[in-house]
Amino acid sequence: MRGMNLDTLATPAALLDEVCMQRNIQRMQLQVAGLGARLRPHVKTAKCLPVAQQQLAAGAQGITVSTLKEAEVFFDAGMHDILYAVCIAPPKLAQAQALRERGCALQIVVDSVAAAQAVVLHGQAHRHRFEVLIEVDTDGHRAGVPPESDLLLQLGRTLHEGGATLVGVMTHAGASYECRTPAALQAMAEQERSRCVRAAERLRAAGLPCPEVSVGSTPTALSARSLQGVTEVRAGVYVFNDLVMWGVGVCEPKDIALSVLCTVIGHQQDKGWVLVDAGWMAMSRDRGTQDPDRDFGYGAVCDEAGTLIDGLSMGSANQEHGILAWQDGRIDADMVRHFPVGTRLRVLPNHACATAAQFPHYEVMTRGGELTRWPRFYGW
Amino acid sequence: MRGMNLDTLATPAALLDEVCMQRNIQRMQLQVAGLGARLRPHVKTAKCLPVAQQQLAAGAQGITVSTLKEAEVFFDAGMHDILYAVCIAPPKLAQAQALRERGCALQIVVDSVAAAQAVVLHGQAHRHRFEVLIEVDTDGHRAGVPPESDLLLQLGRTLHEGGATLVGVMTHAGASYECRTPAALQAMAEQERSRCVRAAERLRAAGLPCPEVSVGSTPTALSARSLQGVTEVRAGVYVFNDLVMWGVGVCEPKDIALSVLCTVIGHQQDKGWVLVDAGWMAMSRDRGTQDPDRDFGYGAVCDEAGTLIDGLSMGSANQEHGILAWQDGRIDADMVRHFPVGTRLRVLPNHACATAAQFPHYEVMTRGGELTRWPRFYGW
Repeated sequence: MRGMNLDTLATPAALLDEVCMQRNIQRMQLQVAGLGARLRPHVKTAKCLPVAQQQLAAGAQGITVSTLKEAEVFFDAGMHDILYAVCIAPPKLAQAQALRERGCALQIVVDSVAAAQAVVLHGQAHRHRFEVLIEVDTDGHRAGVPPESDLLLQLGRTLHEGGATLVGVMTHAGASYECRTPAALQAMAEQERSRCVRAAERLRAAGLPCPEVSVGSTPTALSARSLQGVTEVRAGVYVFNDLVMWGVGVCEPKDIALSVLCTVIGHQQDKGWVLVDAGWMAMSRDRGTQDPDRDFGYGAVCDEAGTLIDGLSMGSANQEHGILAWQDGRIDADMVRHFPVGTRLRVLPNHACATAAQFPHYEVMTRGGELTRWPRFYGW
Repeated sequence: MRGMNLDTLATPAALLDEVCMQRNIQRMQLQVAGLGARLRPHVKTAKCLPVAQQQLAAGAQGITVSTLKEAEVFFDAGMHDILYAVCIAPPKLAQAQALRERGCALQIVVDSVAAAQAVVLHGQAHRHRFEVLIEVDTDGHRAGVPPESDLLLQLGRTLHEGGATLVGVMTHAGASYECRTPAALQAMAEQERSRCVRAAERLRAAGLPCPEVSVGSTPTALSARSLQGVTEVRAGVYVFNDLVMWGVGVCEPKDIALSVLCTVIGHQQDKGWVLVDAGWMAMSRDRGTQDPDRDFGYGAVCDEAGTLIDGLSMGSANQEHGILAWQDGRIDADMVRHFPVGTRLRVLPNHACATAAQFPHYEVMTRGGELTRWPRFYGW
């Protein structure tokens, strides 16, 4: 946001542009609703109540979490429709059950016989009926069972016959982060959709219930042309966007709502370096854009008003030192004059989920033009 | 620590072996004291009061911090001799002054005329006498002025004649992290020492006060043969150690006091993958050991008792998923049998400062054989 006075903020600070965030929320909501599905945003990116509240106010239905701590925090804040989208570790079943017994409609995920049996046995031992989705692997990048596998049906039967509620199937096409063209993104979105729907159809054909078909990642969600057969879409990082999403091609720098405000603390003139008080502890160690063709180091640099300074990036970082230099390697003897000690700059993050996690709160430039502070949490 | 029952711990957890940590503290204390210098440990690694208290109890004198928040937290806990080892951003001077006026003997650092002038002007305007060290660049890796430069003397005069207390010079040989042999480490330690001492001698020869000569990094501190002319040594990560320090050659895996306890949540049998509930959010995104000859991905894997499982590493990670596989790339169809769902493992961190920062507390295996919890803090 331009023209806002940020002088009162201590640096480094996680600066959040509310107007930009709201545009991101609207865009995703319109995209998913326009294709006939519900949006269940992943709150792991922001871990912040006011952010999730804005997503729900815009039309999202339920939330996705990456930890049971997130489930507990957001449930305590009044959100009860929660999908915990990481395959459950059996020792966590008691914690999940406790949340459900407090009224949280917590859904859990499995992708192995061992975990499905643990869910069933725990449910039988404690007279508790868990709601479970089976994770399907639609792109080979992480967890999940193949949609055409016998294992899929075996998991379905184990859960259903064992007394758990089989809610449906879910998948996450994380491989979409490797896509670089609209055509590749659309193809990946269609692959995610079609393979997950196929898994649901196989379960149903086997006489098993499968009401929900849950897919999503920010790149595929924003690129899908059809969500036929899909009931809900999960996406997280779209709420802030970042340099990786720009690299994938689903946002522009102007859509990046999160930046790290920092202050120039020194120079190495003979090297053309500008040193700032935001290092990797502020940016995170995420080097997500280290593609040979577009590498911003630890982040791309903007002036205090948020305008990208073309070619300037945080080439390297120590814990509390960021080293800014021209990406093309030229040594600019005028760095001291361009960016004197005390200059404030903003650094756009490679990966918003990782950068945000380094901060206990966001300094929010609100729609109304005021500064306010929103807390976020961390840990497990 | 072997034989301790960790079943009560939720995963992922930052597991801290107190006995191992105490050995690390003793080793560094003996090394530095044996060479006739004081040890001023850098508390940015642990950001934890009981850890710093043990370092002081073992003989350390004063602490080093990387943020003013660290200074405030540790001062509020009773520690008053504090060096803030990052060149001060002029907007932070009011905060530094407030701390000093509460009784904290906070020392600050500059390496530019602009910052030195800001310190002087702020001091004159607010009738406050700051205690200041000049950062010296002894290895070209980050901040500081060259020991042979006119700028060094100019900074000294600006501070001294402007009414600040010129405490001395300080340097950090971060380039030591690139060393791989004892000879290279000893040479780097000697370079750090000799160049910093030389800067002090030049200031003194110019009639300026320079009582303190402060050097340090864990690799150089542990490798120095002489600290002649040095008054104090700063080091941080030695308290926990990590895979990077093992790679540098200044510790062994048995000396790594911090690990991340995690639980197996699934497999991809055809790929030989074991999935655990600790991803990069727990390990951090630090890929510090990605040398071609020794790359542990996001961490080296131990069994629950802490014994290294030779050749197993966290080859990749998502936010809450770690993917373990054999480093040599072989696909082991027996991974499910070796590491069934629910198995607990420990992952040694690449960089302890980064991994520890992801956790709100340490789960401490105490010397007495009990488990306890020590809080840590984050943010600015």
